[in-house]
Amino acid sequence: MTEPPVRRATVDDAETVAALLHDFNEEFDTDTPGPAVLAERLRSLLAGTGMFALLGGAPAVGVALVSLRPNVWYPGPVALLDEMYVAPSARGGGIGGAIIEHLVEDCRRDGVSAIEINVDQADVDAQRFYERHGFSGVDPDTGERAYYFSQEL
Amino acid sequence: MTEPPVRRATVDDAETVAALLHDFNEEFDTDTPGPAVLAERLRSLLAGTGMFALLGGAPAVGVALVSLRPNVWYPGPVALLDEMYVAPSARGGGIGGAIIEHLVEDCRRDGVSAIEINVDQADVDAQRFYERHGFSGVDPDTGERAYYFSQEL
Repeated sequence: MTEPPVRRATVDDAETVAALLHDFNEEFDTDTPGPAVLAERLRSLLAGTGMFALLGGAPAVGVALVSLRPNVWYPGPVALLDEMYVAPSARGGGIGGAIIEHLVEDCRRDGVSAIEINVDQADVDAQRFYERHGFSGVDPDTGERAYYFSQEL
Repeated sequence: MTEPPVRRATVDDAETVAALLHDFNEEFDTDTPGPAVLAERLRSLLAGTGMFALLGGAPAVGVALVSLRPNVWYPGPVALLDEMYVAPSARGGGIGGAIIEHLVEDCRRDGVSAIEINVDQADVDAQRFYERHGFSGVDPDTGERAYYFSQEL
């Protein structure tokens, strides 16, 4: 079986990334500002240094959206996997795994010190997926989980 | 009772912020690269736009370290409260609450769209503290928590 192709999105891929993210939120009944607003934001964000996206498949049927930020505990930046989505028709074909492996390789190459992701409590399949790809949901010292808290302003 | 003073740290406060963060990790037996390395990183980070710190008390006995990153779902940046620490001798005096209120006001003023924090599962006091200050640990739609996953590179 051939490894699905994965590539770094450019500014010209803003509409493709936006369409996949919009589908993601539609599928899970989450609010979305719509593909046009997302594409406009992505044209700006993908041109900067604080965010990048990976596309999997040709044509693209999977996406990872990653933001970078500084962190005082590490010499390099920390990457947060904001979103990860594979279109329903393409699931089970290894696209998600190929995207994650590409992400970890890119981050290593670019001197990223750590990769983080927040996963829903009930999404046990996603938790197993990330564990298979080197992530841990428990503190190595205490064996304890951390909970994500937030407030919108 | 007078509200404890809170102010935005400048590059000149790098040593003060570093000393408090170092004490934090010493108190909780977490690895720290030491105050000199932290201060060097903070002199660079506090001069940029991706991170800021708030100091509470005079002299400073509390600190919040906050990183900013872009997010496709919001028009403004998202703030992550990376660290929040009040020296043991100063606890119970309202310094933590004053810092958080100042943080929320600063973020509103600066157009930040959301504030996030990861809280240890067992740290129920911290979870109540953040809930009192407007944070929620559950998704408003599903009532579900999200777990923090990570891998160091």
